Amino acid sequence: MRAVRVHRYHEDPSVDEIEEPRLTGPLDVIVKIGGAGVCRTDLHIIEGQWDAVQHPELPYVIGHENAGWVHAVGEAVTNLEVGDTVILHPQPSCGLCRACRAGKDMQCENAFFPGLSNDDGGMAEYLRTTARACVKLDPDTNPADVAALADAGITAYHAVRKALPLLPPGTTAVVQGAGGLGHIGIQCLAALSAARIVVVDKNAEALKLAEQIGAHDTVVADGEHVAAVQELTGGGAQVVFDYVAEQGAEMDGWHMTAPDGSYYVIGYGGELRIPTLDIIATERNIVGNIVGTYTDLAELMVLAQAGRVTLHTQKYPLDQAVDALHDLDAGRVRGRAILVP
Amino acid sequence: MRAVRVHRYHEDPSVDEIEEPRLTGPLDVIVKIGGAGVCRTDLHIIEGQWDAVQHPELPYVIGHENAGWVHAVGEAVTNLEVGDTVILHPQPSCGLCRACRAGKDMQCENAFFPGLSNDDGGMAEYLRTTARACVKLDPDTNPADVAALADAGITAYHAVRKALPLLPPGTTAVVQGAGGLGHIGIQCLAALSAARIVVVDKNAEALKLAEQIGAHDTVVADGEHVAAVQELTGGGAQVVFDYVAEQGAEMDGWHMTAPDGSYYVIGYGGELRIPTLDIIATERNIVGNIVGTYTDLAELMVLAQAGRVTLHTQKYPLDQAVDALHDLDAGRVRGRAILVP
Amino acid sequence: MRAVRVHRYHEDPSVDEIEEPRLTGPLDVIVKIGGAGVCRTDLHIIEGQWDAVQHPELPYVIGHENAGWVHAVGEAVTNLEVGDTVILHPQPSCGLCRACRAGKDMQCENAFFPGLSNDDGGMAEYLRTTARACVKLDPDTNPADVAALADAGITAYHAVRKALPLLPPGTTAVVQGAGGLGHIGIQCLAALSAARIVVVDKNAEALKLAEQIGAHDTVVADGEHVAAVQELTGGGAQVVFDYVAEQGAEMDGWHMTAPDGSYYVIGYGGELRIPTLDIIATERNIVGNIVGTYTDLAELMVLAQAGRVTLHTQKYPLDQAVDALHDLDAGRVRGRAILVP
Amino acid sequence: MRAVRVHRYHEDPSVDEIEEPRLTGPLDVIVKIGGAGVCRTDLHIIEGQWDAVQHPELPYVIGHENAGWVHAVGEAVTNLEVGDTVILHPQPSCGLCRACRAGKDMQCENAFFPGLSNDDGGMAEYLRTTARACVKLDPDTNPADVAALADAGITAYHAVRKALPLLPPGTTAVVQGAGGLGHIGIQCLAALSAARIVVVDKNAEALKLAEQIGAHDTVVADGEHVAAVQELTGGGAQVVFDYVAEQGAEMDGWHMTAPDGSYYVIGYGGELRIPTLDIIATERNIVGNIVGTYTDLAELMVLAQAGRVTLHTQKYPLDQAVDALHDLDAGRVRGRAILVP
Repeated sequence: MRAVRVHRYHEDPSVDEIEEPRLTGPLDVIVKIGGAGVCRTDLHIIEGQWDAVQHPELPYVIGHENAGWVHAVGEAVTNLEVGDTVILHPQPSCGLCRACRAGKDMQCENAFFPGLSNDDGGMAEYLRTTARACVKLDPDTNPADVAALADAGITAYHAVRKALPLLPPGTTAVVQGAGGLGHIGIQCLAALSAARIVVVDKNAEALKLAEQIGAHDTVVADGEHVAAVQELTGGGAQVVFDYVAEQGAEMDGWHMTAPDGSYYVIGYGGELRIPTLDIIATERNIVGNIVGTYTDLAELMVLAQAGRVTLHTQKYPLDQAVDALHDLDAGRVRGRAILVP
Repeated sequence: MRAVRVHRYHEDPSVDEIEEPRLTGPLDVIVKIGGAGVCRTDLHIIEGQWDAVQHPELPYVIGHENAGWVHAVGEAVTNLEVGDTVILHPQPSCGLCRACRAGKDMQCENAFFPGLSNDDGGMAEYLRTTARACVKLDPDTNPADVAALADAGITAYHAVRKALPLLPPGTTAVVQGAGGLGHIGIQCLAALSAARIVVVDKNAEALKLAEQIGAHDTVVADGEHVAAVQELTGGGAQVVFDYVAEQGAEMDGWHMTAPDGSYYVIGYGGELRIPTLDIIATERNIVGNIVGTYTDLAELMVLAQAGRVTLHTQKYPLDQAVDALHDLDAGRVRGRAILVP
Repeated sequence: MRAVRVHRYHEDPSVDEIEEPRLTGPLDVIVKIGGAGVCRTDLHIIEGQWDAVQHPELPYVIGHENAGWVHAVGEAVTNLEVGDTVILHPQPSCGLCRACRAGKDMQCENAFFPGLSNDDGGMAEYLRTTARACVKLDPDTNPADVAALADAGITAYHAVRKALPLLPPGTTAVVQGAGGLGHIGIQCLAALSAARIVVVDKNAEALKLAEQIGAHDTVVADGEHVAAVQELTGGGAQVVFDYVAEQGAEMDGWHMTAPDGSYYVIGYGGELRIPTLDIIATERNIVGNIVGTYTDLAELMVLAQAGRVTLHTQKYPLDQAVDALHDLDAGRVRGRAILVP
Repeated sequence: MRAVRVHRYHEDPSVDEIEEPRLTGPLDVIVKIGGAGVCRTDLHIIEGQWDAVQHPELPYVIGHENAGWVHAVGEAVTNLEVGDTVILHPQPSCGLCRACRAGKDMQCENAFFPGLSNDDGGMAEYLRTTARACVKLDPDTNPADVAALADAGITAYHAVRKALPLLPPGTTAVVQGAGGLGHIGIQCLAALSAARIVVVDKNAEALKLAEQIGAHDTVVADGEHVAAVQELTGGGAQVVFDYVAEQGAEMDGWHMTAPDGSYYVIGYGGELRIPTLDIIATERNIVGNIVGTYTDLAELMVLAQAGRVTLHTQKYPLDQAVDALHDLDAGRVRGRAILVP
């Protein structure tokens, strides 16, 4: 089969002809890929930034945002049949450890992360995952249309879902960053709460789009934006979702958070510097978020299939994967680039 | 009546003869003080550190940790009678704003803080508070025995109470700082959970006491303590209660927190510096805590009256208030110093 | 002033000229009524059904669903000014008892219920209530347009609000009874969740309306409706809101509830007969609901002022109160009858 | 191997020599039984009461309360090794359905229940279960000492665990029935809360024991007990745990529940008859409970291994299983009868 492989860091990957993956365990599932999202993390992998953390053996196949059709199943798989349309949780979990038993898939002690850990990913014709990663979809769903929800989508949704009890009518949610994730976060907020949604971004174009999908107010991140949010909200928002969390956005997000409010970190790259006095005097919280649970992905797919969360995608044939990566790097992709085999 | 008043910052307060406080509103309550705790915050007030925040008009009476007997009540007070034994929530709330309606007394928009804000405190024979600050006690309680729970106690309890859902059997709670607050926090944890309790402090004496009141393990804060806690807990605690949060303890506390765990800030004075990547990669939380609610204080008094939370106190006559303050400053007080009129 | 008073049970009330109410306590508020809802409970009061419970002294003024403008305030009222537009929580609470301190207004030990308990209600030009019952509205709101939310609305909202954590995407909520309360319940569900909404009612007309305001499926209560809901939902709904709960609807509601689901009782009049085996074998719950909290009403008004919850009203001059009561009794009112002074 | 098999309903089972169970799937585990609890449900099985629900093919092996040592594991089992000491969740779950993914093991769509469903149970030398049912214990635990916690224990714990948020200091929990389950429930309450514990039972002996393990008050169920509990609690308990729920105890339990309180059904056999008016007027809840989750069992074992939950057991050799069943039926067993191979 064809697959996009990284051979050396700091070099373009190449589309190679390699062996198809095989079932290695009784819960394994081979998925015929219908769409594989191209993510900024893929650029970081190529730059070698993930080597120290995951140290995969090169060459290996990237691609961690996948949907497709079940091609083969291990002997213990009872929830899927060959031919099922599926979207894949990016990190298959074991189902046996204490974290798994409490429904906390991301804290699984035995998980792997195809396309990131030392396991081939989904920029290929086929991918090996497990039964616990597959969420079944309506058979007529086009996997390429939803693949981006497998990583960007679940991550945006997870944070919103956790924060809902803090967002009854009369409260305000700030969304920092109206890009891929923020875009989905706004739609999830509009679908699941009646909170006022204030979106902050540097890009006026992105803010215009935000208004069309549920933002009640938008603020250009022009240096005056913290003060602007403070004034709009009368002292801060009950929840700030920070889909940026770098280059100063992290301190902005904290300062936009109301007393008794919570600052949700989803993006990364920056550093918080906060006196403990500021934390206690106002009784504010900082909440970490990483990807999401299987249940999160399943719930998000309900919203997607009901048309309440949509995503602009730009499709590329698998053979043009390098073009897609270059376009992403150069800011030439609108919405999400998706490889279609 | 006699009262301990600050006349000038950086000078000892004096015990003056002043007018008794009077009822000023229909929900006001005049309390005859039976015990007033001497707190490190009182030293900070005298040093002028709170002037910028609260700017009280000098001279004024300090003392924000009070218990006693109801002496007079306003016309709208229906929950108390003259002679009732009471402990006082330190910050009377209005009962009319949105925060009050949700039970969040500390977020009240119209609260005052006797002995801290521009309102006379309780190092005196009488104090003016309101009906919403009074928790009724068994008539035979000696107010001097419980006064310290009015501020130190409620603060320690509030954080533990919020964290209980995170602490089922099999989890670990770390308590940083086995002083006044930590001491109470340990007892609350032992009374309300079956979590393993690990206590960290510089003082070996304090750790010995901690063991007697519920600590399962103790660790001397000698520079190797973060590693020691990591090893004891197999990678960190589900909840870290930081009753210190200054001089580096704040980063220690964060580093002792397990993935998916929460770092509760109660002390203050230090600064957190945390990359947003560390927050998301492990999905950890930072939780602010400030004093507590009326309900917290009422619940804590149930524990106290059942003998499950006790506190060593050292009593001083009101006239020797300056001695008590000096003793506290010099580290000569065991437990809590209490002024008794 | 003019007021609608019940003089003898089983007789029409009359519109009398009586004294205006006066401030009796420091937190009292006199409200100039702008709209008073006419409720089925008023018919029951006239029939003497509430006499045993509330034993009011006759004659007295009925009307417990009120909105208007602040006319006078007691000396301790700090959250309102004369002229403010307000909607009134039907049961003013004391703010001092333990239930009030936890935000549970309906469990207040010292509450009264104007128009139901021995206190004059709002079918009059003026009403006495307290500062803790008043929710401030945008000044240009017409009280007659929102009055019905003061009792029917808060009750419908309270149940939905409590159930939200049980209704993530992919779950189903059944609403039994698409009348006044159910009608509001459907709109609240549509505004605050993405759950599938199935509405059950005897009246095809009511079901048509339900579809326009958010129902995804409707089922005529024709004797086959339990089976129909079972089939539509694949074995029952995660939450059943029973706004009827009499004449057999209560057992229907229970039987429409899925394993691990919850049956919310809001209406009344019927009797549940359930073997304890049925409760444990499926681990189902039965949840009681009574009116709602002050916070519920304030949140509902946010939805109403955003146009997300609307209510058809039919206005009558105060002098035609008896006509309104007769019309309600005869089933001639569409939506809610509102008296306008 | 030897095994206790039911051949015909209404006849004593016999101890037969049969084939050892074999691994049938990759997640299967064969456990060498160290202790198998004898439960009232076993008597009901023999009486044929479960035939209609579970219709097992006779003869089959009973015993659903088991602990022992891992004897063999399927190829996909990664969390256990041969020789591990384990206690067994009574209902192995699939790990793939939506209920399992949310941690709700008892709602698993594909579960089986050895000794109850058509699968051989644990009154034998060996039992087939799966990796998802095994909770690892300290190697030196004697399985016979803890086996009774596998069903009676988890069931008692599950209800207490769910109710903890309703039981802060100052509240009261009533336990109806101080037998096997209630006995464990009392110990769990004492370990995990500071609520006042009131125990109701017909048996004065059982009440004496209840006092030794944590009950603050006891009430003999002599016909005056509802009134007695009402008086002790000033109008009812915040939570009533009904470990009986038959022969009238179910209505007693409901009537002992305070306004805004919850009645937890754990036992079964009786019938509730409750007007919906009673449910809403006091806003009370009825909560179903069935066995518990894997996590519940793991947490309970932490309490057991810390000595905070203990259980009197009476051991019988496997060959004397029929004697044990007769003794149980005749009320001659103190604590729990355990078969030891």
